[in-house]
Amino acid sequence: MPRNQQIVLDNRPQGEAVASNFKLVAVDTPALKDGEVLVRHHFLSLDPYMRGRMNESKSYAASQGLGEVMIGGTVGEVAESSHPKYAVGDKVVGMGGWQEYSVVDGNAVGALRKVDTTHVPLSHYLGAVGMPGVTAWYGLVKIINPKEGETVVVSAATGAVGSAFAALAKARGCRVVGIAGGPDKCKYAVEELGFDVCIDHRAHGDLKSMSKALKEACPNGIDGYFENVGGYILDAVLLRSNAFARIAVCGMIAGYDGQPLPLQNPALILVNRMKVEGFIVSEHMEVWPEALKELGTLVGTGKLRPRETVAEGIAAAPEAFLGLLKGKNFGKQLVKLI
Amino acid sequence: MPRNQQIVLDNRPQGEAVASNFKLVAVDTPALKDGEVLVRHHFLSLDPYMRGRMNESKSYAASQGLGEVMIGGTVGEVAESSHPKYAVGDKVVGMGGWQEYSVVDGNAVGALRKVDTTHVPLSHYLGAVGMPGVTAWYGLVKIINPKEGETVVVSAATGAVGSAFAALAKARGCRVVGIAGGPDKCKYAVEELGFDVCIDHRAHGDLKSMSKALKEACPNGIDGYFENVGGYILDAVLLRSNAFARIAVCGMIAGYDGQPLPLQNPALILVNRMKVEGFIVSEHMEVWPEALKELGTLVGTGKLRPRETVAEGIAAAPEAFLGLLKGKNFGKQLVKLI
Repeated sequence: MPRNQQIVLDNRPQGEAVASNFKLVAVDTPALKDGEVLVRHHFLSLDPYMRGRMNESKSYAASQGLGEVMIGGTVGEVAESSHPKYAVGDKVVGMGGWQEYSVVDGNAVGALRKVDTTHVPLSHYLGAVGMPGVTAWYGLVKIINPKEGETVVVSAATGAVGSAFAALAKARGCRVVGIAGGPDKCKYAVEELGFDVCIDHRAHGDLKSMSKALKEACPNGIDGYFENVGGYILDAVLLRSNAFARIAVCGMIAGYDGQPLPLQNPALILVNRMKVEGFIVSEHMEVWPEALKELGTLVGTGKLRPRETVAEGIAAAPEAFLGLLKGKNFGKQLVKLI
Repeated sequence: MPRNQQIVLDNRPQGEAVASNFKLVAVDTPALKDGEVLVRHHFLSLDPYMRGRMNESKSYAASQGLGEVMIGGTVGEVAESSHPKYAVGDKVVGMGGWQEYSVVDGNAVGALRKVDTTHVPLSHYLGAVGMPGVTAWYGLVKIINPKEGETVVVSAATGAVGSAFAALAKARGCRVVGIAGGPDKCKYAVEELGFDVCIDHRAHGDLKSMSKALKEACPNGIDGYFENVGGYILDAVLLRSNAFARIAVCGMIAGYDGQPLPLQNPALILVNRMKVEGFIVSEHMEVWPEALKELGTLVGTGKLRPRETVAEGIAAAPEAFLGLLKGKNFGKQLVKLI
């Protein structure tokens, strides 16, 4: 029974999330019951949606209980098994949470998924070939549904979702414009991720400036937008949208601390006959196989080379997560646990 | 060559539209060329979209030229014809504008449509069995697409669009909640138009109060909303929306004078995984036959008994239109010209 270090939610944020909202604890892993599997986590995924879970108020994900292990995607290997389907050493993806080990009911549908690491590194199953990749796929394919030659824009462009979005959109013949924070990320977006242009939002920190930058980056206007941030960037996108533009709303990280985040001119939804649609990818499990297949191929063939920022050890998870919320990560934010 | 009185747009509104933006002029009707038809208008339709046309700025409809006859739907009868398809006395619907007569190219596709007044009064082809009715149909059927038992809400409930919306939604087994201005309209909405409940927005003039009223009127939450007004009512609807709710954005009359009309909490689109879609019914001509058939049947069988407010004479059009923008009309606003 190995010792299991965990991060639990100790108290809820008052405004901005801080490190003292979390607490590191250690427990013994319990003995397995019949049908259960003990997974040793290699990597923990940190994702913006977790911030929403920390609030008590209604969010787009259920609230996280106080004193409970923080929710989160994990990849690892089976360390012990009382289930015939799983053998020690199997590589698995699951929702193990912010801890070093998890005990999983091997019969629960979708709780664990065995993965092949021949062509895809294990960690990528938390990013490009996992939930963030499928998120990009759903928003692009099912909501924006672009035609060849259309212009699509994504915010948080160098993150796990944004980088997958770029590869998927380029494969469909789109002009792809990213928005990211800082010249390094923008350079990387264009040189490594295949974006046609990337706009540095730190250099365009208000509506007027961002709107002008979008006009230059999108000479034919915007046909589709994948929203990760909210706030003035969404306002600017609406000003540059074409008739019948589609906006997939995946996240509004700018408002996660409770700041009011009004949309200045919703009448543009009418003026431009736009469709604005929110979604949570876990509610669309039917698309995962198709999406993962395309994403796995893009990674396997080198067309999608996602970048990772890796924190070391479970104790580093809170600071890494707080950094993610401020855009300090560069690519997919992970915590390496082994 | 009868004399033709016309209302032209003389100058653009500075903020609120006023009577002096319009000018009454009179011209001779020209002699017909081959293929042309002279229509004598019986009724002119007044509709909120016309306010958008008065602005120079980009709106959801093209800008109206200064000195030109105001655009508008008309019903009337053929007074002279140089086209074999049209005979004197034929009843026709068209876009004749704010004037007593119009000369129409009988070969132009869709410019004139002959109508049967056996079961449907001529004026209703400008309302329930015309553009406003099809507008309600498109938003309800193609965007909200309600299931039986769902709750749908419409603002401007007793107007031409709202009253058709109620009949169409009741025919689909929905709970239908209206929002209208004043106790008389609300009483009429429930007693004559088939609304289950109608909320008086004058008695609920802020977000908190409207949100509370919607909670009471929609005990199972809101699944679909047909937006005619914008502003705090839309904010309140978002607060009461269920997961996967759909909003058809048809108009935002509250912002037509250029007031900023922000949406306070667009993150709810994500929280509730909503779809918000703007549309203009004239861009969806493919649905008109199906929609008009259903609407004609609803009117012909007495299930939809639309109310009209009728101003007399072309000179009365500007004041009637300004009243419409303030909600002074009760049901479809028309101008009777003969």
